[in-house]
Formats: sequence, structure tokens, C-alpha cells
Amino acid sequence: MAEKGSESEWVVMATGRSPTNIAVIKYWGKRDEDLILPINDSISLTLDPLHLSATTTAAVSPGFSRDRMWLNGKEIPLSGERYQKCLREIRKRANEVSDEKKGLKIKKEDWESLHVHISSYNNFPTAAGLASSAAGFACLVFTLAKLMNVKEDLGQISSIARQGSGSACRSLFGGFVKWTMGNNADGSDSLAIQLADEAHWTDLVVIIAVVSSKQKETSSTSGMRETVQTSALIKHRAETVVPARMLKMEEAIANRDFASFAKLACSDSNQFHAVCLDTSPPIFYMNDTSHRIINLVEKWNHSEGTPQVAYTFDAGPNAVLISPNRKTAALLMQRLLYQFPPNQETDLTSFVVGDKSILQDAGVRSMKDIENLEPPTEIKDKVPHQRFTGDVSYFICTRVGSGPKVLTDETLALLDPVTGLPK
Amino acid sequence: MAEKGSESEWVVMATGRSPTNIAVIKYWGKRDEDLILPINDSISLTLDPLHLSATTTAAVSPGFSRDRMWLNGKEIPLSGERYQKCLREIRKRANEVSDEKKGLKIKKEDWESLHVHISSYNNFPTAAGLASSAAGFACLVFTLAKLMNVKEDLGQISSIARQGSGSACRSLFGGFVKWTMGNNADGSDSLAIQLADEAHWTDLVVIIAVVSSKQKETSSTSGMRETVQTSALIKHRAETVVPARMLKMEEAIANRDFASFAKLACSDSNQFHAVCLDTSPPIFYMNDTSHRIINLVEKWNHSEGTPQVAYTFDAGPNAVLISPNRKTAALLMQRLLYQFPPNQETDLTSFVVGDKSILQDAGVRSMKDIENLEPPTEIKDKVPHQRFTGDVSYFICTRVGSGPKVLTDETLALLDPVTGLPK
Repeated sequence: MAEKGSESEWVVMATGRSPTNIAVIKYWGKRDEDLILPINDSISLTLDPLHLSATTTAAVSPGFSRDRMWLNGKEIPLSGERYQKCLREIRKRANEVSDEKKGLKIKKEDWESLHVHISSYNNFPTAAGLASSAAGFACLVFTLAKLMNVKEDLGQISSIARQGSGSACRSLFGGFVKWTMGNNADGSDSLAIQLADEAHWTDLVVIIAVVSSKQKETSSTSGMRETVQTSALIKHRAETVVPARMLKMEEAIANRDFASFAKLACSDSNQFHAVCLDTSPPIFYMNDTSHRIINLVEKWNHSEGTPQVAYTFDAGPNAVLISPNRKTAALLMQRLLYQFPPNQETDLTSFVVGDKSILQDAGVRSMKDIENLEPPTEIKDKVPHQRFTGDVSYFICTRVGSGPKVLTDETLALLDPVTGLPK
Repeated sequence: MAEKGSESEWVVMATGRSPTNIAVIKYWGKRDEDLILPINDSISLTLDPLHLSATTTAAVSPGFSRDRMWLNGKEIPLSGERYQKCLREIRKRANEVSDEKKGLKIKKEDWESLHVHISSYNNFPTAAGLASSAAGFACLVFTLAKLMNVKEDLGQISSIARQGSGSACRSLFGGFVKWTMGNNADGSDSLAIQLADEAHWTDLVVIIAVVSSKQKETSSTSGMRETVQTSALIKHRAETVVPARMLKMEEAIANRDFASFAKLACSDSNQFHAVCLDTSPPIFYMNDTSHRIINLVEKWNHSEGTPQVAYTFDAGPNAVLISPNRKTAALLMQRLLYQFPPNQETDLTSFVVGDKSILQDAGVRSMKDIENLEPPTEIKDKVPHQRFTGDVSYFICTRVGSGPKVLTDETLALLDPVTGLPK
């Protein structure tokens, strides 16, 4: 058992913060449901944790009688197989931890019998469908690994996070990340690799349109299972289309070639939704608002003759829009606000969140400025150009960001250092 | 030149009526744009011309100075290549016509120099996106062939109609029709074949939900061109998926096997829309209302454990729903009216048109009855079950019907027998 200088019960904690990520070559379909092994490689952009991230504190104490977890302040069961797998795999790799200040030593073999408390918090609405499980599982595994002094590299850690939520493995790195599907039956080589860090291509601006949706959506777990079982197109996508696109996307990112990047990202998002539609029963994640956002972008890109913005949609109606620079992002923001103005009762501060400087670049300082926006030139002469008030709930302006970090500032911990319970 | 008993100018006319059709294995993509040769076979149901058809009168007179055409009472140019092709191909096959009563004879060689007047009328809104061009071109070619005493069989005639509008070839027959893509470079073997006539499977009931849409839609001509050029999935669909489905669908129709029929029809409709989505830029024909209709059907089919209804969508948001019998159609009608009630100002007579007896079977005799409908059992316990008032403009109840017919009743002609101008 753990040795301790004094007889009083101690609590040891670690706190981590992990980003979310958005795939530009999509993961859809597993070849192994238990190990979460995908049928194709994928590529994602890590989003700035300042705007979209999970923070997790993991604590251990001989006083804890069982493993417990709180998500956004509410206790949730840890009994699910996915949580259990992550805990088990990290515990297996735990090492000796000693804290001289506290005068304690946790031996390697102690970890099997010690219980943990975990508290996790997303700095964005979980319900918004913004890959909260990716950030969450990445953060859980990253933080537990820190707590337990796991020595494996981030690639190996990502392979554990993958077993919590497939796309979580891509949140172990900043910048541009590839999830390589791997060949091994045990999944040991199905892990994330950083293609380039966040300093590689700093001009990119990301605007997320959070789309109001009343529809209950198909979970991605059951959705992709049904696609693999019933779509007549998914095999061709996974085996033929994606491998070719992976090479091109890696090249586009390496060369900061926005035109190729945008073309590939849009096509792959559309193809992912196409195979969802080809599923029986069909799965619809995009709605009329999503379609209108695509049409807005396609019309603008077409009128300029070269891509101004890329779009990609995950398993929900929200649009993730990527611009090559701030200037284009400001022009995009004008177009978005023109076509999707907020409801009267909304205030601008909560309608555009994140990096608000994009809003200033767009020359929008008040709700009145939105009302007075001119229709963009590419639709000016075409009637009707309707404004769809309230169809976008809010916008998040962000950028490509860094990978998981340990938060050493103890005031940021989500658990009380004495009780080990949520603050 | 034509001989005539008297010196006064004569007019000879023929009037035909052709049905529209709805594909259950979809045609999408041409291998030859000029000849309109498809990249895969397709299968359709001919719909009852009583509810959905084109009527065309074609007239010839030495007094006509040029070819002219009127569509729904409005003169339209005949200069388009598709019209010209149909006229040319039919004229090539024209034969001697003699009318003893009128005492005239038109020689085979006369047809090249004689001009025609054509008037065509759809008994359903052209704008509703209900394959009006299929019925229209089928009727044009069928009626001109009658006028000019063309001896070729309907299969050969269908190959000419195909050059006006691809799917028009399938409107040359009643019942269940296959368009075989053919092999010949000149398109001579790309024609329609009747799989079974309308008497083969009389129980089927067809309900069309005409969905309100404000979006301008991509024309199917340019849409399918873009799909062939840009979709990474269309080739696999055309070469691998459709051939297998054709065999199964022919078998399902031969055996009146509704469960297989429904499964194939729904899957193929969804796959057609999937390849549209996989097009760059993506094409959206279905909207949120279309998706809701699909969800309604899928939920019901799932809860019953066996397909109650099949759905299929063409290049627009309208749903074509096929029930195996009147009893199921009445239950479907209740569900549709529950979820998509009419606006207050709509009257029931114009909200459900065609074979209104389905409405009586559904126990709906008034707007009040629609208001009072109970939610169907499969959604009863699930909240929210919203009613989407006004999202469906109207319903057409119809059935599988017969092929083109000559209308001998001269009062039905659309051209004046003396002037050769629209009545």
C-alpha cells in the first residue's frame, strides 16, 4: 500500500486540458466495435482549447472507496465499458509516484487497488454537437496518464483514448493530426500522428455556426454501425476514395495549399453525409440551414473562381467553416450574419463568441450593423435572397490550436485538494 | 405535295395522352449527353393518367408556315435541340396517310416539307416537379407518331422519346417498365421494355406528397452531368450496385413481393440522393420536410416489423409513397395528415386530390377530422411529436396505370380542327 509520512489521508491530483478537433477527412465506420478500429484513416484540425476544450482533474486517495466521475458538475456512472477500458489501460501502465513535499510514495502495484475521482468540464455546450466526447476522452486519458506517471508517448496514449471515443485519439496533438487506421488486430497501431503543429499554418480562421435543431440525432456510434452494415457505397469510400484523398490532404496541409485543402475537405464532408444517406434507414445530420450554409459558401467560392472558405459538418447540423486568412474570415462573417441574423432578443456578445476580433474586422459592432448589412455581391442581383433569422443559434470564432496541456495552477483544479470532491 | 379533293386548306390532327412515371430504380447520369444514353438501367411505375398525364394534339396542314408548339396554352419555342431531334426522328419514319372522309392523301415524302402545330397540356402543375417532361416528351413523340402513321413498335418509339427527355421513354408503357441502357453507340437499343402491365399488381396505392419549396432546384440535366463529372461514388453505383438491384427489383415486381420492392425502392432513392450529395458542388433535392416524411415511414415500417410503405424521391422534395393495399394506404394517409395538416385557409377538396376514396377509407371527411386525428401509436409515447402545418402543399392519391392512348373523341383535341390553333 501507499506509504505516507503522516497518518492523515492524502489526495494527489493532476489537471489537464484537451482540445476538441474537427475532421477534414472523415472517420465513419469501424472494423472492430470493441477496440474502436476504423475502416479508414482520417485527418483533423485541432481547435484552439481557449474556445473549445475539456478540462479534467483526476485525483487519487486511499480514502476513496470507488472510482467516481463528475461531468460538468453532475455525477455520471463510470460503469460504461468505454470508461472502464480507458481506466484499465492507463492503470496497467501506471508507475511509481512520489511526492516529497507531501512525503508520500505510490508504488506501481498500488494503482490497481487505489480508486480515482475524476471531474471534467467542457468550456462549450455539450449539447451543441461539437465533438465533446473527443475532447472529453482525450482529456480523461491524458490526465489519468499524468496522475499515474504513465511513460508511454502521446501516440500510445492516443491509442488508449481511441478506445473511449474513436476521434478522441486525434485530440492528443495540436495542429494537424492524422489517425492512422493501423493493421494490428489488437489495435496497437491504430493511433494519432501529428502531421504538423499549430505553428505550421497560423493564418487559418475557423468559424463554427451552431445550428438550431429540434431533431433528435442518430448517435455516431449507432449511425456508423448501420452505415457499415447497410450502405452499398461505404466500402468503396473506405477502400478506394479515402486512401487517395489522404495523400492529397497531407500534401495540401504540408504545402499550405488552401484551394486543394478546401476542395478535399468539402468533398469529404459531403461524401460522409452521402454514405449516411445511403444507410438503411437513412441518416440525416444536415438540415435545411446546413444546406443553406453550403450553398452560401459554394456560391461565393464559385463567384470568386477560387475557394474562399472550406466547410465541414460532423454528425450534426453545425457548420465548421475554415478561411485561409482573417480578411476572408471577415468577409465570410459578413455573409453569415447577413443570411442568418440573430433573433431580436439575442445580444451580439452571446451571438458571436470566441475570437471576437473577427467581428470587428467585419465592421460589425452592434445589432444595428447586422440589420444594415448589404447583401453580398454574388447574390445581390438574384432574387429572392432571404434572411433566415434565428436559424443559427450562435457563431464561435476560433483557430487551429495546441494539444493537451497539464494545468499546474492548482486553482484551476476541478476537485478539492482536501476532500477530492468537486469544488 | 399532298393531294386534296377540294382546294380549301385541310388540317389533319391526332390527339394522345401519356402518363408520367416514377422511377423505383433511379436513372442518374448519362454516358452520352446528345443521345441521352444512361449509365445504368432503371425501372419505373407508370402512374394513372387520370391523375397525372400530358395530353397532346398534333396537327398538320399545308397552311402552316412553320412548326409551332403551345404548352399549357402558352406558345413555346420549338428550336431546342431536344424538340428538333424528336421531330426529325419521327418525320424520318413517317408513312403515307390518307383520310378518305376528308378526301386527302399525305405521301411519305410530303412529311419533310409539311409543318406541324403541337399543343400540349398537363393535368397537374408543371412546377410541382412531377416529371412533367417525361409525360410531355412521351406524349409529343407518341402523338406525332400517330399523326404521321409511324409503324415502329412502342419500344422503338420510346427510343425517340428518350432523346427528348431520358425518363420519357419509360412513359410509353403502362404498368412496370424497364429502361435498358443498351450497348449500341447510336442508342438504338437504349429503350423501354414493359416488365408487367398495370393489371399485374393492382393492389398498389400511390400517394404523392407535394412539398412546398422555396429553393430553386438544380435541373436534372445539369445535376446528373455534374454528378458524373465529380462524384467519386457514381461509377460504383452505376456499375456495381444498380445491376444487382435491377435483378432483385424485377424479381420483386414479378412476385408482387412488396417487402423486397419497398426495401429496394427506398434504398435506391436514398442512394440517388447520396450521389447528388457526393457531387461538387453538392446537390440537395430533399429538404427537412422530405426527411420528416422518410422518418415517418421508417419509424412506422420499423414498428410494424415489415414495410408498410415504400418512398421514393425524384429531383425535388416531393415524396412518392407506395402502399401495398388500400388498407395500408388509409393508415398512411392518417399519419401524413396528422403530421402535415393543411393551412387553415386550405380546403380539403384541394388538399387531397386524385382518388379521394383513400381519404374516406382514412375516416377523414372534413378539416375538423384532420385536427382531431390521434398521433399514430408508433410515436404516441415519444415526445415531441410536432405537427408541421402547411409543409405539404397537397396530396395526390393515385395508382399504377396504363400507357399512352389515342384520344379519338375530337372534343378532347387541344387544337381547332379548322384553324389548327389552340382552342
